[in-house]
Amino acid sequence: MADHIATATDLFEIVKTTRSMRRLKPDPVPDALIRKLLEAGVCAPSGGNMQHWRFIVIQDETIKQTVGAYYKRAWDEVVGPRYRASEPAPGMDRDQFLRTLAAAEHLAAHIHEAPVWIVPCLQGGAPTRTAGASIYPALQNMLLAARALGLGATLTTLYLSFEKEAEAALGLPPDWHSYAILPIGYPVGRFGPVRRVALADVVFRDRWGQAYRDQ
Amino acid sequence: MADHIATATDLFEIVKTTRSMRRLKPDPVPDALIRKLLEAGVCAPSGGNMQHWRFIVIQDETIKQTVGAYYKRAWDEVVGPRYRASEPAPGMDRDQFLRTLAAAEHLAAHIHEAPVWIVPCLQGGAPTRTAGASIYPALQNMLLAARALGLGATLTTLYLSFEKEAEAALGLPPDWHSYAILPIGYPVGRFGPVRRVALADVVFRDRWGQAYRDQ
Repeated sequence: MADHIATATDLFEIVKTTRSMRRLKPDPVPDALIRKLLEAGVCAPSGGNMQHWRFIVIQDETIKQTVGAYYKRAWDEVVGPRYRASEPAPGMDRDQFLRTLAAAEHLAAHIHEAPVWIVPCLQGGAPTRTAGASIYPALQNMLLAARALGLGATLTTLYLSFEKEAEAALGLPPDWHSYAILPIGYPVGRFGPVRRVALADVVFRDRWGQAYRDQ
Repeated sequence: MADHIATATDLFEIVKTTRSMRRLKPDPVPDALIRKLLEAGVCAPSGGNMQHWRFIVIQDETIKQTVGAYYKRAWDEVVGPRYRASEPAPGMDRDQFLRTLAAAEHLAAHIHEAPVWIVPCLQGGAPTRTAGASIYPALQNMLLAARALGLGATLTTLYLSFEKEAEAALGLPPDWHSYAILPIGYPVGRFGPVRRVALADVVFRDRWGQAYRDQ
């Protein structure tokens, strides 16, 4: 039993098996688990530790349906065609790529059925490259916590093709913006290891282009 | 022993005790640990799983000194005065605020002495609010992994007051930009629980302004 618990919450194990879970069951998720996600989220750093973030936990069917319709439109009209025309992600073969596309398409059609969404928000409209430094670490904590609790989730921003419409439907005040939707629920599929390119392809030592090797 | 290991890598324990560690020893950090950090980092999600990130692991003294000088200048001329003039972070009393300020000041003067930096980069100059969605989750994984391995680290962006100069010193190609510096080393102080405001202050249920309470 102790072994099982250690395995289920071991940081490195969790990190390596936190995949985007895009097929979710509509079954309700207990509030106690959502609270654990939120608690993990707000432990993340933010600029000056100011915690200027807000998180909306959405279970309201009407809001999910309205925003979900914009999500689907963004997929159908903007993101889906772009993905389909692009190369598979690095390290993915054609079959894997098509499975991921199918899962993304499934999410687009069913995102409103996810029992819970978490929508993170920050104040200020002017886009800066580092604005996300005060919100995405919190979302990563939430994704890891979801995985540890047996919940599926994914970080998606594609509804922002209809930012104005979606944020109006979310009821955000002027000058506040959303940074993602995290649809959350019990996963249909199983957790498994993430697939990534080799470190040597993306890590340099000291100088750009200089391969990173252990010394 | 098993108990100790379970405690040291339990996700929720790690999440709750991953503080920004700004006082670091200059002692070298084994490459094997840096590799574990990097491996955790690249498990994070990125847009379309495209992994367009690059990470520079910097141990070169000259680069750290040159960029560190811009970091110090940014603290002295821009960020330090702004912090000093501002209110303490929410939930912090005056003493805690002054201790954090002193730690930030220490980091500004000593960042080049941290044995390792990791600098995450993405291509594309146009700032968008969600650009960071494909890089900051990876940094959060690295911060958590550092904590689990007994290493101190912090996510800082303040050198970007001198973005052009610092990125030239980092040798980034045109159209690539850095999103943070993670100075990493063995911490002088101890890990401990993070301090955050209550969930009720930052979480809404369904509608903006509607307090989140368990149902």
